[in-house]
Amino acid sequence: MVYQLYYWPTIQGRGEFVRLALEEAQADYVDVARRKNGTGELLKMLAQGATPSFAPPFLVAGEQTIGQVANILLFLGGAHGLAPRAQARRLWIHQLQLTMADLVAEVHETHHPISVSLYYEDQKKEAKRRSAGFLAERVPKYFGYFETALAAAPRGGYFLGARVSYADLSMFQLIEGLHYAFPASMARLMPAYPRLAALRGQVAQRPHIAAYLASKRRIAFNREGIFRHYPELDKQADK
Amino acid sequence: MVYQLYYWPTIQGRGEFVRLALEEAQADYVDVARRKNGTGELLKMLAQGATPSFAPPFLVAGEQTIGQVANILLFLGGAHGLAPRAQARRLWIHQLQLTMADLVAEVHETHHPISVSLYYEDQKKEAKRRSAGFLAERVPKYFGYFETALAAAPRGGYFLGARVSYADLSMFQLIEGLHYAFPASMARLMPAYPRLAALRGQVAQRPHIAAYLASKRRIAFNREGIFRHYPELDKQADK
Repeated sequence: MVYQLYYWPTIQGRGEFVRLALEEAQADYVDVARRKNGTGELLKMLAQGATPSFAPPFLVAGEQTIGQVANILLFLGGAHGLAPRAQARRLWIHQLQLTMADLVAEVHETHHPISVSLYYEDQKKEAKRRSAGFLAERVPKYFGYFETALAAAPRGGYFLGARVSYADLSMFQLIEGLHYAFPASMARLMPAYPRLAALRGQVAQRPHIAAYLASKRRIAFNREGIFRHYPELDKQADK
Repeated sequence: MVYQLYYWPTIQGRGEFVRLALEEAQADYVDVARRKNGTGELLKMLAQGATPSFAPPFLVAGEQTIGQVANILLFLGGAHGLAPRAQARRLWIHQLQLTMADLVAEVHETHHPISVSLYYEDQKKEAKRRSAGFLAERVPKYFGYFETALAAAPRGGYFLGARVSYADLSMFQLIEGLHYAFPASMARLMPAYPRLAALRGQVAQRPHIAAYLASKRRIAFNREGIFRHYPELDKQADK
């Protein structure tokens, strides 16, 4: 089966969590919108069919069209061995993914706290306040949580121990993205999360992921995606 | 099996999506934190065990502890006939639920656009701007999407047609909550979404749901939950 991934062609964004799983699984896929006239195809498909999507990404898998990142990963995880078969552990990995989705939404709010329809410049003051609290309170709360989850796992460095799952790939992406967006703050924060730092390195060195990251398929971080680097938002939020 | 639901005892909040599914299924459950000293039990359990939760609600089901609303509903849906068995439709219902979760997060942002750690009064100005855009653009976008999904469904009024799923219960709760928080705006908006209005009525009349809504188990909406009524946020956002 050749999957069709539909996502914006110029950003990592939410689509990247799906791309990483497809790459790790060595699945055959077409990143549809990156082809000629691909964005038009994406927009045409978005609200179509029996299972329309509210927003990209969505994945066409034969007869099925699946939307929502965590839902796509639930599907791909089952189909490609990136999630446990046993229900309890499958739900645990999904729970971690959904918590990451909450964090991703909060990352987006750091640069768009008032409206997605307004430019960043029109909500910059609010973005500064939001980002200061995000870095001082929310990142430590989330990262502390994920660090605890890793500490409770069997040996091996991943959330399931020695076996990689889609949640590990997403965690890697979250750490990468936050380092791009908030380099100074993350350099200051990360020493408190050695297990997360180790997971990041371990995922980056997986052969299929390393090959992907070095390829042209990996779009560079930029100021259109979820993770954006605005130096004025990357301030030390002293208490 | 008797489930233990852990959620804040004085609000509907995110826990209500789980309560509605438990009630519709007539599942045996204890709403732990509503018992004497229950909040202490909740806080003690929150970060415990092999599958800790980032935040309530979480559900203990025998040996399993499951967090994240959509994940709990995925589990309960399968166990109690509130989700399809076939994978494609099961993922579709989950996709709808995850899109509702995104909307719920945006509802929370209407009164806390800057920080969850600040009082509403300290971000009221920003909350007004956020709410205006939310009501003018986001609610119509989400409701238009869900209305389209109902229009594409088989006859019967629910997302699967004649058969109710947890996504229908959650949609009901979302519509209820938005009417509580933004009564004037919702009165103005709802005529454009007749299928959603019909679903709301249909869910409310289901015998187990009607009994629950009339019982003391249903906590009233209030200003501590996700859906909060601040009249100053319920303004017509004319263009």
